[in-house]
Amino acid sequence: MSAERVQVKEKVLSVNDQLAAENRERLAEQGIFSLNFISSPGSGKTTLLERTVDLLKPTLRLAVVAGDVQTRRDAERLERHGVPVEAIETGGGCHLDARQVARTLAALDLRRTDLLFIENVGNLVCPSSFDLGESAKVVLMSVTEGEDKPLKYPAAFRRSTALVLTKIDLVPHLDFDPERAIEHARSVNPELAVFSTSSVSGEGLEMWTAWLNEQAAACRKSAERAGS
Amino acid sequence: MSAERVQVKEKVLSVNDQLAAENRERLAEQGIFSLNFISSPGSGKTTLLERTVDLLKPTLRLAVVAGDVQTRRDAERLERHGVPVEAIETGGGCHLDARQVARTLAALDLRRTDLLFIENVGNLVCPSSFDLGESAKVVLMSVTEGEDKPLKYPAAFRRSTALVLTKIDLVPHLDFDPERAIEHARSVNPELAVFSTSSVSGEGLEMWTAWLNEQAAACRKSAERAGS
Repeated sequence: MSAERVQVKEKVLSVNDQLAAENRERLAEQGIFSLNFISSPGSGKTTLLERTVDLLKPTLRLAVVAGDVQTRRDAERLERHGVPVEAIETGGGCHLDARQVARTLAALDLRRTDLLFIENVGNLVCPSSFDLGESAKVVLMSVTEGEDKPLKYPAAFRRSTALVLTKIDLVPHLDFDPERAIEHARSVNPELAVFSTSSVSGEGLEMWTAWLNEQAAACRKSAERAGS
Repeated sequence: MSAERVQVKEKVLSVNDQLAAENRERLAEQGIFSLNFISSPGSGKTTLLERTVDLLKPTLRLAVVAGDVQTRRDAERLERHGVPVEAIETGGGCHLDARQVARTLAALDLRRTDLLFIENVGNLVCPSSFDLGESAKVVLMSVTEGEDKPLKYPAAFRRSTALVLTKIDLVPHLDFDPERAIEHARSVNPELAVFSTSSVSGEGLEMWTAWLNEQAAACRKSAERAGS
């Protein structure tokens, strides 16, 4: 990369970091737990979110920001589940940035939100470099993608708090060892919380949503302490 | 995107285009048909290439350039099939560029090559903006990724000559209609040559390799005419 290009990239990232810090403060004030979902296209982000929304809707106030390169298809799918959804169409852009998310935060009713899901553009590389101000990143990996993805695309796994292994109902039809994939992911990031899930059979979704409930409760308490 | 960022991006693309044109000329002089493979991580690029190399090796002289964000794992897998392989590790970079490919062309014996496969970084967004000097782009899409990928990530489909639908052996276990996926792809690019394949069962590989043989023969003839 040329020196000029590196310089511009650093400047872009530093502006982004500043806006992300503002987003983070805004969300923390309201005690909102927010997650930035990162994965390849087709790993099952939207389907996992649809199932998760259905399971958590009775107990938590949810909101979704859905990013896509083109179309509002994901946003429309999620809207059908009766939660507030803001769409970001990047128009070719390969990741979401903090400025785009700041705009959607202004459109959402944050005082009536406990848990915010941000579905990034389907891309396992670029989104991991851009902080959006989220509480935590979640990386998804479907069992059809091959066990070695954490080694070949380490940044997304290193920067995430949780890994959701998706489509585990397909394991019997594949040459894929989930234990080995998890081992690879933990070799990159030993702290990863790991959830093995199927949005088709529902396997693993109880543990996943229990974890989300816990994180949201901790975040709310921390905001109450700060406010009192 | 800021004006400064747009300017740098345009400059980067224009330098890349120039280097890509040099690569293209170099490959055309030798009558080499070259393909730039673009897809999400885990769509099955390396496995398709392993099978393709085995099938074409008896009749064509092959070479491979294998790009990865981190590790040389894909290159090592392909080397085991007895063809010359050059690895490009981008170290975080989200796509290959023409300069990186130019370096690998210098390392390969082009006078003894009929068909060159360039396996791009696993990313359905960024690689489609960077011409490498290839004869044609091939976009891969696995049946596990969802039918609407061509609509959500149109650039890769628009700029490709061929679509290889992979993992079709998994269709019976999925809620996926291959016809609908192909329809979506052709709505973005009506000219796409489409191959439905499984690297596990071998289905569709005969038509795919027949197409490659034809393209390579046409490319060789065109170089012979230009040279005579």
